[in-house]
Amino acid sequence: MIKVGIVGGTGYTGVELLRLLSRHPDVELRAVTSRKEAGMKVAEMFPSLRGRVDIAFSTPEDAKLTECDVVFFATPHGVAMAQARELLEAGVKVIDLAADFRLKDPAEFAKWYAMEHSCTDLLAEAVYGLPEVNRAAIQSARLIGMAGCYPTSVQLGLLPLLENGKKLIETTGLIADCKSGVSGAGRKAEVGTLFAESADNFKAYGVKGHRHSPEIMQGLSEIHGAPVQLTFVPHLTPMIRGIHSTIYARLTEEGKNTDIQKLFEERFANEVFVDVMPAGSCPETRSVRGSNTARIAVHRPGNGDLLVILVVEDNLVKGASGQSVQVMNLMFGLNEQHGLDVVPLLP
Amino acid sequence: MIKVGIVGGTGYTGVELLRLLSRHPDVELRAVTSRKEAGMKVAEMFPSLRGRVDIAFSTPEDAKLTECDVVFFATPHGVAMAQARELLEAGVKVIDLAADFRLKDPAEFAKWYAMEHSCTDLLAEAVYGLPEVNRAAIQSARLIGMAGCYPTSVQLGLLPLLENGKKLIETTGLIADCKSGVSGAGRKAEVGTLFAESADNFKAYGVKGHRHSPEIMQGLSEIHGAPVQLTFVPHLTPMIRGIHSTIYARLTEEGKNTDIQKLFEERFANEVFVDVMPAGSCPETRSVRGSNTARIAVHRPGNGDLLVILVVEDNLVKGASGQSVQVMNLMFGLNEQHGLDVVPLLP
Amino acid sequence: MIKVGIVGGTGYTGVELLRLLSRHPDVELRAVTSRKEAGMKVAEMFPSLRGRVDIAFSTPEDAKLTECDVVFFATPHGVAMAQARELLEAGVKVIDLAADFRLKDPAEFAKWYAMEHSCTDLLAEAVYGLPEVNRAAIQSARLIGMAGCYPTSVQLGLLPLLENGKKLIETTGLIADCKSGVSGAGRKAEVGTLFAESADNFKAYGVKGHRHSPEIMQGLSEIHGAPVQLTFVPHLTPMIRGIHSTIYARLTEEGKNTDIQKLFEERFANEVFVDVMPAGSCPETRSVRGSNTARIAVHRPGNGDLLVILVVEDNLVKGASGQSVQVMNLMFGLNEQHGLDVVPLLP
Amino acid sequence: MIKVGIVGGTGYTGVELLRLLSRHPDVELRAVTSRKEAGMKVAEMFPSLRGRVDIAFSTPEDAKLTECDVVFFATPHGVAMAQARELLEAGVKVIDLAADFRLKDPAEFAKWYAMEHSCTDLLAEAVYGLPEVNRAAIQSARLIGMAGCYPTSVQLGLLPLLENGKKLIETTGLIADCKSGVSGAGRKAEVGTLFAESADNFKAYGVKGHRHSPEIMQGLSEIHGAPVQLTFVPHLTPMIRGIHSTIYARLTEEGKNTDIQKLFEERFANEVFVDVMPAGSCPETRSVRGSNTARIAVHRPGNGDLLVILVVEDNLVKGASGQSVQVMNLMFGLNEQHGLDVVPLLP
Repeated sequence: MIKVGIVGGTGYTGVELLRLLSRHPDVELRAVTSRKEAGMKVAEMFPSLRGRVDIAFSTPEDAKLTECDVVFFATPHGVAMAQARELLEAGVKVIDLAADFRLKDPAEFAKWYAMEHSCTDLLAEAVYGLPEVNRAAIQSARLIGMAGCYPTSVQLGLLPLLENGKKLIETTGLIADCKSGVSGAGRKAEVGTLFAESADNFKAYGVKGHRHSPEIMQGLSEIHGAPVQLTFVPHLTPMIRGIHSTIYARLTEEGKNTDIQKLFEERFANEVFVDVMPAGSCPETRSVRGSNTARIAVHRPGNGDLLVILVVEDNLVKGASGQSVQVMNLMFGLNEQHGLDVVPLLP
Repeated sequence: MIKVGIVGGTGYTGVELLRLLSRHPDVELRAVTSRKEAGMKVAEMFPSLRGRVDIAFSTPEDAKLTECDVVFFATPHGVAMAQARELLEAGVKVIDLAADFRLKDPAEFAKWYAMEHSCTDLLAEAVYGLPEVNRAAIQSARLIGMAGCYPTSVQLGLLPLLENGKKLIETTGLIADCKSGVSGAGRKAEVGTLFAESADNFKAYGVKGHRHSPEIMQGLSEIHGAPVQLTFVPHLTPMIRGIHSTIYARLTEEGKNTDIQKLFEERFANEVFVDVMPAGSCPETRSVRGSNTARIAVHRPGNGDLLVILVVEDNLVKGASGQSVQVMNLMFGLNEQHGLDVVPLLP
Repeated sequence: MIKVGIVGGTGYTGVELLRLLSRHPDVELRAVTSRKEAGMKVAEMFPSLRGRVDIAFSTPEDAKLTECDVVFFATPHGVAMAQARELLEAGVKVIDLAADFRLKDPAEFAKWYAMEHSCTDLLAEAVYGLPEVNRAAIQSARLIGMAGCYPTSVQLGLLPLLENGKKLIETTGLIADCKSGVSGAGRKAEVGTLFAESADNFKAYGVKGHRHSPEIMQGLSEIHGAPVQLTFVPHLTPMIRGIHSTIYARLTEEGKNTDIQKLFEERFANEVFVDVMPAGSCPETRSVRGSNTARIAVHRPGNGDLLVILVVEDNLVKGASGQSVQVMNLMFGLNEQHGLDVVPLLP
Repeated sequence: MIKVGIVGGTGYTGVELLRLLSRHPDVELRAVTSRKEAGMKVAEMFPSLRGRVDIAFSTPEDAKLTECDVVFFATPHGVAMAQARELLEAGVKVIDLAADFRLKDPAEFAKWYAMEHSCTDLLAEAVYGLPEVNRAAIQSARLIGMAGCYPTSVQLGLLPLLENGKKLIETTGLIADCKSGVSGAGRKAEVGTLFAESADNFKAYGVKGHRHSPEIMQGLSEIHGAPVQLTFVPHLTPMIRGIHSTIYARLTEEGKNTDIQKLFEERFANEVFVDVMPAGSCPETRSVRGSNTARIAVHRPGNGDLLVILVVEDNLVKGASGQSVQVMNLMFGLNEQHGLDVVPLLP
């Protein structure tokens, strides 16, 4: 049994980790920390876990995280980088669901997250947690910076077109018009995500610049082996879970002569968590609700030179906690699907 | 033109007052205060008011409220009682949408609102703002404690059965099972009313005791001229606006021999904001969305001795801001409907 | 492996059965019928089942249901009673999720469902599918009429107070004020349950009389061993899944002297799918979303004689498909929880 | 008083027309037809109109539409073109909210709406109902084909950039990624727009080709005076009302050297129903809920060559019924704002 600790179990990625790990056959949950809620039973805060999770929140001090095999950080940005070194030195693997180990350039991190990076050596070592892109590196890593929710969907949607220097689409002028459910904003008391503010409403945000923009471009450029330029426009949509990314790319001549549907199907044929839909499909976010699957459909309207790629995922599962369990499975040599065999909840 | 000031314009009852007053033909909006947002254009915070409300939030000091004819308090409990005396002494009428002047017994106020009442003489003078019950007193009042959202619906639903000592229903054992949209919780940053917490969810709350319980019983007892006992169970339902009260009352023998439908129709025949639906109807909250109307239907399932009364209102309009404009109209001798001729928004 | 057939797989109880049975370790899904969709892959209609359910809808003729061990009817009322005899005679167990085998009195059935009952002998034999009430009878039954969604919640909420002739509450004048998500209305094309009709809206319906009313009273009377009278008022609330029943009962003197919390806790101590919440709790429907659990809390406001019982369930799981899998497990001597270990999806 | 008839008053554009016209100071509502509901009071079907609209639905025969001054068609496609000639010949002005008179090319109409156009001479005469583009033509027209909901938002968003042959953006490769509330699908009984299908869900649809695509390109090409090519991808979002269009355009060198914010502000300075938001804004759909206003914001992320234009409107008001009242006002020489002074409902 893998001894697991969770730092920061009171947010949505935390409770989602608990939902998944409480049924994971190879996991023993050792500690869930929350300085503020220390002493309170986890299932008192989240009654959905009654009978599933019996432990209480503990302080970081009481949690004895160095005795775990792996520690997940489901915390605000900045927490993991302050605690990772001690854990790693104690032989504990670290999986950070926040952004501390995503951006490789410390200056970029400082610019977008308004804090200096405190352990740039670890940043250099950290592996980006997107299994479909770098499974091998994850398997041998001890420190993971999990991919963000939007970046996961956009990178999966462009992966077959860009990897290994392919010339199927123009690599500038890409557009990702993304729509997220409100849980993506986290479980923080804020006016903007109150029910009465965000229900029956739709809006864009962060058009001037969003933290996931540099992460997406870093990821795509690495996949491609050359710079890729993309405009990212996120929107807030009145649903709890789900991300729908609509990605627009200009086909090159080579791209126009390629069977894109087949390309996608073959690229993801062995990926258990990526489902390429039949030609002509429009995937719905609810078709992946609660599951670790991303579904992708590719369209070429009017047989023109514009490719429209539709990607759906559950932002809290494939976009966060589920993917981090997938990563944990890889790090410990388990079947990638362990603990993740949830059938989506529809309706 | 009536010169109007609003204290606390950043909450839902505040913006709703602005929506209604900005179209009121007899009103000149002089000041909207918010210490925190002073200097910001009201329409910057609420873009729905662009082109409708041109003033900026001001500090209470700059607002010169004593130069107004009437001041609305759309504030947390406790604010109006601290400022009312100065305004009244300057000849300004005061309408409090919070609870400072609702409960007549200062001890009850202290018990339910966890603060001492600071001006019990004014409390004694204050008139309860429920026009269908005490229109005359409102017309001559200078200080109003507006009825709460739930209490408005429950009192209107029982009014014809209880007023003037009528013996049509048992006056103990009454039940009000009420359901409110989330805007009823206000525009405060709180976890419990986040979209991702309250969407696709339903729950009761405050079953042990809710502040509106003593207010309802005080009101009903006054209407009846004798004590009335009622159990009030509020619930939160995933919609923005609307209250649906399902009220259960045991008919007396006299009640069983009374045409209750006719009783309701006659009682409210001259009330422009109370609509008695045809027998057998089930009013929907959306049928009053955005309007100052309450709709009522009465049922007697199986022709038994249990009366089921259904009342819907928009909690922000008839349950708060709209009713306070109705009260203002009465206080200034205007047509009760001025500024309130909004057709409900359906769908 | 239990060979399972499903008649009527295109509605919500059908797709929910598929969600649960596709992961059931002891089940082999043999056929899902739909005359209208015959030939279409089940997963084409419900993409959430891609990779989980590989079979196509078949006509009833092609389905060879008589070769199954058990057949579920997830159909409109009237279908199961037309097909049950042939299956039973072939040795197939039958579980009807519709109402054909719920009401014991054929006259009552005819009155509420507007059709004559075509096999009253089977009706007499059928066992009511509510395991917490009659587990033993279910274990040895070959024909089950599953409890309805509302009736499950109301009966569970009153079970400890009424069973075996207990005198803890008055058995007339009971009230069940119930609120259901919109999926309870089924997956039929109807104006009233369109998104734009039922979102941001709340209403009662069926106040004059609802089919679940006689079912509830039949069940409670059987539990109690004497007639029980209850008024049932259902409401539609804008969420997809979930039922919240608020039940009001007058305590007798004996009831007032009983520790009701303890009574409930002891009664359900061995029931894996009924969770009695700590005193003072208000269960949320989302705390059971997607799971077969019902959660119950009991309140006695102001320590008076009115008991308020709050029950939540997922109408499609404990209120329908999940409970029918629980029943199947019992009929085949399996662990009651097999295939039902879903952790609720929160948020 | 203008005598008004409405053909097809049972859908969402119909009830929305009734909401607006019932308060219009210059309108006398003469008839609302519905063959199916003839005889039923309009306010019985739509209780929101109780006390506002007293007439009943009538058959087309009883409606005496030829005695009206203007008739609105709020009907499925194909109805208006069958009845327009008779009305026009009787001197009645006709405003069609459906698509019969939108596409100028009968072949295009036949292709997208799967029916032959039955009066191509009237089609040639008909004026496209988008006042900000062709106000003068509307003022003198007797037959209007109202702009569609999506086309209104996209054309307003691109108008200042394209009109009169301007060379500010590339006129091929334009993208309109549009999101609509569910009321856009109409008040028809269909499975896909049930609450339980479309709540908590997000999807694209019609990616292969949508009827509004040729309408948008026809409109933009006319505005520009030369062909314009645009890819239109509509999405369904779980809200009742509202369209949010996110439009992507490549700036030319001339465009990069133009103050786009100022261009938009000046272009719409005299348009009472188009609100250009301050630079950096992200308009919300709720900021126009129930009103005839469209709000627009323009962004140039990273000061690059991609322009992102955000447009919000209420699909039932500016996108349909409200705009048709605006058009009626113009046709009858009234103030454009008459009957349309609704303050948006927020929250």
